Amino acid sequence: MSDHCLFCAIVAGELPSVKVAEDDTTCAFMDINPASDGHLLVVPKRHSTDLFDIAPEDLAEVTVVAQRVAKAAVEELGADGVNLFNCCGSTAWQSVFHFHLHVIPRYKDRVKDRLRLPWTPEVPGDPDTITALGDRICAALQA
Amino acid sequence: MSDHCLFCAIVAGELPSVKVAEDDTTCAFMDINPASDGHLLVVPKRHSTDLFDIAPEDLAEVTVVAQRVAKAAVEELGADGVNLFNCCGSTAWQSVFHFHLHVIPRYKDRVKDRLRLPWTPEVPGDPDTITALGDRICAALQA
Repeated sequence: MSDHCLFCAIVAGELPSVKVAEDDTTCAFMDINPASDGHLLVVPKRHSTDLFDIAPEDLAEVTVVAQRVAKAAVEELGADGVNLFNCCGSTAWQSVFHFHLHVIPRYKDRVKDRLRLPWTPEVPGDPDTITALGDRICAALQA
Repeated sequence: MSDHCLFCAIVAGELPSVKVAEDDTTCAFMDINPASDGHLLVVPKRHSTDLFDIAPEDLAEVTVVAQRVAKAAVEELGADGVNLFNCCGSTAWQSVFHFHLHVIPRYKDRVKDRLRLPWTPEVPGDPDTITALGDRICAALQA
């Protein structure tokens, strides 16, 4: 447990939250600033700051729990889809520095769903740039 | 392999792509419509349509590979953070129906980064509504 960590305090029950699932490794609770009805967070109980800090085995557990919780939320709330979302670093909109995976049920009904498309997916990139960047990442993975 | 699936064809090498990593279970390749420089997708080789269809063991593998690829991309490209993003269902912006996890390096430099905040995270929801929704999801998980 990390001192002064909001999510460690929620995991420990020292701060109130609406928990929906909990096991030895993970905890799932409602986001208090929801992007949609049923917006949840899944966190590892063991403190890690972000995607680069979390142990792979904790990450795998969190993701599989998120899948299970997402299914239950979508079925129970009559949602039309779901997004999983992780923010690593303040530039990527991370605001609480305990790894958390957002589970965001999505609705055709815009009252329940306050999300905007984060990018315009149909805009093609420059193929040569994409290839050059991909080659660099591939080489970095093999270094 | 599923007929007429774009990502099955990429995995099989029947369509061109810039692959950066591949193992028995997963394949990581560059997104051709990137939201930022270095935008990648990680997919299971075994076809599954979405988050609700993918086997938990494939999901865990894909996510751990995404973590590794994200680290390499951020370090190699000098990014300032990264987002992981999954879209399940057309209402949640899924457009290719083979499970894929977006790995999106993020930059303070807005030329390399074309994302907009998908929601306004500091807007609190109604606590009673959040509790009621959480209780329903919790009960559904235990049913």
